[in-house]
Amino acid sequence: MVALLQRNSCIFKLLGLCLLFCCLVEIPAVEARIRHYKWEVKYEYKSPDCFKKLVITINGGTPGPTILAQQGDTVVVELKNSLLTENVAIHWHGIRQIGTPWSDGAEGVTQCPILPGDTFKYQFVVDRPGTYLYHAHYGMQREAGLYGSIRVALPEGESEPFLYDYDRSIILNDWYHRSTYEHAVGLSSNPFVWVGEPQSLLIQGKGRFNCSSIATPSLEPGVCNTSSPDCSPYAVTVVPGKTYRLRIASLTALSALSFQIEGHNLTVVEADGHYVEPFVVKNLFIYSGETYSVLIKADQDPSRNYWITTNIVSRNPTTTTQNVTTTTPPGLAFLNYYPNHPRRSPPTVPPVGPAWNDVQPRLNQSLAIKAHRDFIHTPPQTPDRVIVFLNTQNQINGNRRWSVNNVSFTLPHTPYLIALQQNLTDAFDQTPPPEGYDFVNYDIYKVANNSNATTSDGIYRLQFNTTVDIILQNANTMNANNSETHPWHLHGHDFWVLGYGEGKFDINNDPKKYNLVNPIMKNTVPVHPYGWTALRFRADNPGVWAFHCHIESHFYMGMGVVFAEGIDRLGNLPSSIMGCGETKGVTHRP
Amino acid sequence: MVALLQRNSCIFKLLGLCLLFCCLVEIPAVEARIRHYKWEVKYEYKSPDCFKKLVITINGGTPGPTILAQQGDTVVVELKNSLLTENVAIHWHGIRQIGTPWSDGAEGVTQCPILPGDTFKYQFVVDRPGTYLYHAHYGMQREAGLYGSIRVALPEGESEPFLYDYDRSIILNDWYHRSTYEHAVGLSSNPFVWVGEPQSLLIQGKGRFNCSSIATPSLEPGVCNTSSPDCSPYAVTVVPGKTYRLRIASLTALSALSFQIEGHNLTVVEADGHYVEPFVVKNLFIYSGETYSVLIKADQDPSRNYWITTNIVSRNPTTTTQNVTTTTPPGLAFLNYYPNHPRRSPPTVPPVGPAWNDVQPRLNQSLAIKAHRDFIHTPPQTPDRVIVFLNTQNQINGNRRWSVNNVSFTLPHTPYLIALQQNLTDAFDQTPPPEGYDFVNYDIYKVANNSNATTSDGIYRLQFNTTVDIILQNANTMNANNSETHPWHLHGHDFWVLGYGEGKFDINNDPKKYNLVNPIMKNTVPVHPYGWTALRFRADNPGVWAFHCHIESHFYMGMGVVFAEGIDRLGNLPSSIMGCGETKGVTHRP
Repeated sequence: MVALLQRNSCIFKLLGLCLLFCCLVEIPAVEARIRHYKWEVKYEYKSPDCFKKLVITINGGTPGPTILAQQGDTVVVELKNSLLTENVAIHWHGIRQIGTPWSDGAEGVTQCPILPGDTFKYQFVVDRPGTYLYHAHYGMQREAGLYGSIRVALPEGESEPFLYDYDRSIILNDWYHRSTYEHAVGLSSNPFVWVGEPQSLLIQGKGRFNCSSIATPSLEPGVCNTSSPDCSPYAVTVVPGKTYRLRIASLTALSALSFQIEGHNLTVVEADGHYVEPFVVKNLFIYSGETYSVLIKADQDPSRNYWITTNIVSRNPTTTTQNVTTTTPPGLAFLNYYPNHPRRSPPTVPPVGPAWNDVQPRLNQSLAIKAHRDFIHTPPQTPDRVIVFLNTQNQINGNRRWSVNNVSFTLPHTPYLIALQQNLTDAFDQTPPPEGYDFVNYDIYKVANNSNATTSDGIYRLQFNTTVDIILQNANTMNANNSETHPWHLHGHDFWVLGYGEGKFDINNDPKKYNLVNPIMKNTVPVHPYGWTALRFRADNPGVWAFHCHIESHFYMGMGVVFAEGIDRLGNLPSSIMGCGETKGVTHRP
Repeated sequence: MVALLQRNSCIFKLLGLCLLFCCLVEIPAVEARIRHYKWEVKYEYKSPDCFKKLVITINGGTPGPTILAQQGDTVVVELKNSLLTENVAIHWHGIRQIGTPWSDGAEGVTQCPILPGDTFKYQFVVDRPGTYLYHAHYGMQREAGLYGSIRVALPEGESEPFLYDYDRSIILNDWYHRSTYEHAVGLSSNPFVWVGEPQSLLIQGKGRFNCSSIATPSLEPGVCNTSSPDCSPYAVTVVPGKTYRLRIASLTALSALSFQIEGHNLTVVEADGHYVEPFVVKNLFIYSGETYSVLIKADQDPSRNYWITTNIVSRNPTTTTQNVTTTTPPGLAFLNYYPNHPRRSPPTVPPVGPAWNDVQPRLNQSLAIKAHRDFIHTPPQTPDRVIVFLNTQNQINGNRRWSVNNVSFTLPHTPYLIALQQNLTDAFDQTPPPEGYDFVNYDIYKVANNSNATTSDGIYRLQFNTTVDIILQNANTMNANNSETHPWHLHGHDFWVLGYGEGKFDINNDPKKYNLVNPIMKNTVPVHPYGWTALRFRADNPGVWAFHCHIESHFYMGMGVVFAEGIDRLGNLPSSIMGCGETKGVTHRP
């Protein structure tokens, strides 16, 4: 056993040297070029948290391969769908798809789904450096494991406004043992059946479920196996004295998270691809769809490892089913000081995360994020149009739904991009959804019956090159004294985050408090419980763009809208995005 | 409890009267007409054998609704796919689709799959009376529960060549607790992972899994519940003295079955929609894809109920996994003599089925089935073409496959029907697969390495209006001393069954023994272990037609071929069957 450890230790030293070497060569110095990937998507058995289940992999892994590129490069992903009977679509989260709106990967919005057996070519330019993501954007496939990182480096000769030695990507996720099918069937059932809180939290695809917490072992012996290599704790290996850029992203299905590294401060320097005026935190709060870069210095006692932990916030992480209460354990990984063994447990107990129901520190972090002083994009000072989105939970035709201004979103059968470009006016509801709600009478602190709530696939048409303000207004859910956190993600754009507030947004006074000086630009932003968040963006990207809560089940249940702009500027659409709804026919070949 | 039973007894008397009434009125006397169905396909939790799992339902049920029609009627099924991310296609098994080859429902052969959210209209004429089926024909969805019965009555004034009072449909099936995804992932894995024998056998959608056989109860309490109404035993209620036509069909994923009714003889009168010269059996052997009508007379002691049982034959129904051996229990239902309570168990033990590995009685039954003397369709006396199909198991590129003449079938991405009609020659391999195998040297009794085996989507093009003979030649699998039973099903045609034999087919002598006098016509026929089966059909139905082993996993693993005939006689194809492969484009609207 000792011999084994010694041999392993040698291997890890070698591995460490390899890692150093890889980091040095990973983005070679060349002109803008094509980054070509061939991916195969399929179901495989994996045990990311020691519990074996079917997951969707890319080239055999979850998370999938990291896309490494340089600003200005063209990324080409040839995606082969090897699922048996299930379609797929992948969204390139944070990539604006300027000039390639058909590559956004939002099924029903910008493309038909990719059928089993088909290979679809995504092609787009990564026009800004930073930390981005990709993930399934069809049904609830994202939570089956179909996701990964995109890391875009600066052009040669340019440098970030901060210094670091090495770069690491970490995706946080929550993990369910039930299949997405089971989850979705529950959400669509009458009465509604909720899957509960996740069974575990994953750090870069690895977590740890307490197998002994299965009161009665399951049908299959060995289905939960803590010695599976799939669930060996993730380790970030650091060389003492060096500074690391950790690119931290969340792709949770449900959970808002805090993230911390025992004994190490985190200096926040990037958010969603934009440089942040640096600030230091112990806990980083992160919502599904967000990315941050934080710097850490390996300046602690190098003779040991340290805990990396992630905890659920904003929701009580306990689930009670049939009188059995379970709590999602924190996600754990190791900050491994080289040359300690990367599996050596820290000698301490993992640090405790912040109280799940304490909103103030989370709001404070939101307010602390400003554009870096040298990288301020000054926003237009006034909007051309202001739309307020009231976020509510509703009961519509017996089903539990989420709505925006009492309209619960449904996807059409013919993708909007094709329908609009081809003027297929019966492909979706031509009536635009409302611009606001009953600002005077609606009580956001009460359970409202919202009996006029409906479902619709109507969209917001934005005049090209105008400035649009969006106010996300939170409210009470269908349970008394409950309001949730919703991270809203906008496709095709970055927006300025002009302000956050508590209570009901006051259209007359709150805009006066907007930060029009150094607001951060982002693509995903939370609206806090009972609060509001104000955004501004330029409708300057011809295409059709989803804007939705990034919680997988919330979008599935209708919490989203769609914006269309500059449709008359679109050229011909590729036939590869067609095949569904009104877009079936024999292609005339070249 | 006694009061409850008495009250229930009253309810059942009423129910009995209702049933009698329904039977009398179910096919009212009118002209050929349109039978219009609206179906919604979705996932729901059901417990067909007391074990709760997700199944695919039609309008909330599995089996789906029975289609009742009269010869010459047009059946229209508007099928809405409400699966979340999964496509679907439904085959109308035994319906020849004369003039409507695009309604055959074989995904990849006659249509693109139906996407989630879409509604597809199947429309076809039921031109012959008899007992038919429908079921999913995409991936392995059939074994998720997507199937049902089609019963076509004679025109007014015509009558069958046998007498009965009432008519009942019974579908037999085998049932797995794992999802089709899990099953398929195992089949495609390297190394191959086999799901094992089924957990139970279902009679008309109801079976009984022994919940206490789960050594360690599963994750979810209540997942196995013997008091679930879903798994109350199926009861066929009969009135003493009356004669019943039982339309028995098998849609097993894997199993060959025997079927018997304690104390009652079965008189076989129909097979796959053709009248049989009647013969009497105790056990009816039935293979996946076959239908039979048997007559039974309720002539036994009416004071009790009797067991209806079904057992696995041809395969050893035991599975050993991780040193645990399980055996599929027989399927049980009740023949309920009215007015006994339909849930009253017979006072006997269920009769034991025939030995699983005794081939002779099964071969004997195959040989006993001849056309009814008054309904003989004399076959053409000579063929224009003879094709021999050697059935083997192979290892191809590391995967376990099934092959025909060493070619393992794969489906193309553009359905053949569209590719052929539009002359899209790169849509599939234009090289036809072989017409035979090495008749001289191949030893069907040995494990063969078949190292030249390949995969292909090539097809057999048949000259229109010619007579084709097919010899199905069985052989050893990849395990020593093992040959399986394969029920082959032909789309778009009925074929004459000219003969069965043991060993290697002798092209010079065996055809002399063909029954050219009164062969039965069928659409599904078994090839017995180490045996051969000879068929003849007329290539007189313009379209593209699958011919394949009806075992779900065998077809998935390549055990099939495709015939094309009369393509130049096809008119325009409906755009509704398009949308995949090379058939994506904007439809020009009417």
